[in-house]
Amino acid sequence: MSGGAGRGGTGPVASEADIIAYFAPLTARFPGAFALKDDCAAFAPEPGSEIVLNTDAVAEGVHFLAGDGAADVAWKALAVNVSDLAAKGARPRVYLMALAFPEPPGRAWLEDFARGLAEAQERFGIELAGGDTDQRPGPMSVTITAVGEVPAGRMVRRGAARPGDVLYVSGTLGDAALGLKVRTETDLAARWRLGAPHAQALVARYLRPEPPIELATVLMAHARAAMDISDGLTKDLGRMAKASGCGATVETAKLPMSAAVVAVNAADARAAMTAMLAGGDDYEVLAAVDPAEAQAFERAAAAVGVRVTAIGSMRPGAGVVVLDGHNQPMDIMQSGWDHF
Amino acid sequence: MSGGAGRGGTGPVASEADIIAYFAPLTARFPGAFALKDDCAAFAPEPGSEIVLNTDAVAEGVHFLAGDGAADVAWKALAVNVSDLAAKGARPRVYLMALAFPEPPGRAWLEDFARGLAEAQERFGIELAGGDTDQRPGPMSVTITAVGEVPAGRMVRRGAARPGDVLYVSGTLGDAALGLKVRTETDLAARWRLGAPHAQALVARYLRPEPPIELATVLMAHARAAMDISDGLTKDLGRMAKASGCGATVETAKLPMSAAVVAVNAADARAAMTAMLAGGDDYEVLAAVDPAEAQAFERAAAAVGVRVTAIGSMRPGAGVVVLDGHNQPMDIMQSGWDHF
Repeated sequence: MSGGAGRGGTGPVASEADIIAYFAPLTARFPGAFALKDDCAAFAPEPGSEIVLNTDAVAEGVHFLAGDGAADVAWKALAVNVSDLAAKGARPRVYLMALAFPEPPGRAWLEDFARGLAEAQERFGIELAGGDTDQRPGPMSVTITAVGEVPAGRMVRRGAARPGDVLYVSGTLGDAALGLKVRTETDLAARWRLGAPHAQALVARYLRPEPPIELATVLMAHARAAMDISDGLTKDLGRMAKASGCGATVETAKLPMSAAVVAVNAADARAAMTAMLAGGDDYEVLAAVDPAEAQAFERAAAAVGVRVTAIGSMRPGAGVVVLDGHNQPMDIMQSGWDHF
Repeated sequence: MSGGAGRGGTGPVASEADIIAYFAPLTARFPGAFALKDDCAAFAPEPGSEIVLNTDAVAEGVHFLAGDGAADVAWKALAVNVSDLAAKGARPRVYLMALAFPEPPGRAWLEDFARGLAEAQERFGIELAGGDTDQRPGPMSVTITAVGEVPAGRMVRRGAARPGDVLYVSGTLGDAALGLKVRTETDLAARWRLGAPHAQALVARYLRPEPPIELATVLMAHARAAMDISDGLTKDLGRMAKASGCGATVETAKLPMSAAVVAVNAADARAAMTAMLAGGDDYEVLAAVDPAEAQAFERAAAAVGVRVTAIGSMRPGAGVVVLDGHNQPMDIMQSGWDHF
């Protein structure tokens, strides 16, 4: 980004400088952004630390819906990147944002988008450092690169789990996937007899994921391996197991459910289980913890106010085994989870 | 990126893991990429240094043509980001790459793209750290975030020029813009009576920009302000002048021309001048140097093998004045440069 011009008024913006004017205030607490008036940002990590880097894009029609509010789109674009940092034990610091629009955005949309970014920045403790804006055909997209910080050599790895490790997840599972269904299938909340608060809670989890950044230091201190859950529990656990060279077992009876998912489960147990096992967009943390560290991990998580639930364990071998309520292995391919 | 699967064979790739297999070898010299098998990369800057960050996207139909070879597209995507780092005095270190494809790329295309990246990495001394791949409608795009390194607090700024500073450019100007014209207007090389070597040289500058990374340390030691020239000399100089709170004067008689641009100039002086003043894609460096440092700057540039040419100076006031061959101000709006 470069330049700096006016905001306010109505209608579409006229130039990249107009767009930058909406975003420059988001750099107020980070001098290394040079108020978006230079070509690059400068960031100095704390002595003894290293930076953790991640990039993820969200695009209209793929990662969010055309009808989603600009503030929610902005929040999600930042949250999905912060989620990866937090799961690696990293403290979010700064981010760069590349925007692509098929046509110049309206000023009200930009105002709303910048507000969503500001809210997410505040929640996640991260500052805008720089960016790029292009007009081109195709869906509107937001590509963020997030920079976090860990003590040197302490990034929590995906592939370091060992057989016997206890598997934990943060928060609750399935909410976002069910929220997307409720949002797109108009009669679903009624069919599931969900009250408005439950329906709204599910949709909110889809629109505004809240990765548990407070867990980062806990993971660094007590977890052997961790990653965020973005593509569904079994798929992401399969990745952790493969990278760690072992297998994993999940006990479905232990999966943490929100009150809203409990309500869905009462009306449609299959939908609830599908969402918990295979639904995407949870942005919770999956962690493998040495059994000797399990108690300390749970205490430390409680101390930072993050719910963690033991849902199974790593084991020798390969692949993910999912146990049903009677501790019998579920044939997940025949049970309908084959869409992932 | 995550996973890791097979390359080779023909036809389109089947999964993100297939794509990652083409890129994992590009991380071979950077252990912090974890061979693209983790969710984030870890990078430790040298003690006493800070990181310099930049993100720029290139998209088919906007920044490159549908017919451009995959290796050239890859080279350009990386070069345009490295260009910003070099102009800030930074040493390129690592980069992240977010790819968007409207349909799965073919294996031959990916092979070629990865080869272009490998060549650019070798030339610029930068390593792949991580990335993201999405399938979505719209043009193929490559969004790179580049990470460089400077001694803490030493990033060369855009807005630090002062009246009286000598203005320098690296290399030669206009080649890439003329190369694009020669590439898209089939009879132009003949009309301009360009021999094949000159025509090829211009097109090569468009396809494979070579930002002068060797100049980075020279800029840090001797320049007051610098930026890269990506949108045309007068436009980018206008940005430097505005950010620095002063004006600038360019003497067109001093603009550095390659042999190929000299040849174009003989046939169509207006086209050559337009390209040098307003053509984009040069990816050379524009630097403002204290007159007391000018000799040292020139010597240091010569020592690292980079041609630099004094083309004018910064002055009090505002805006860019362009002087013609008789040192008369050109009315650049009336002279046809109003397309930028």
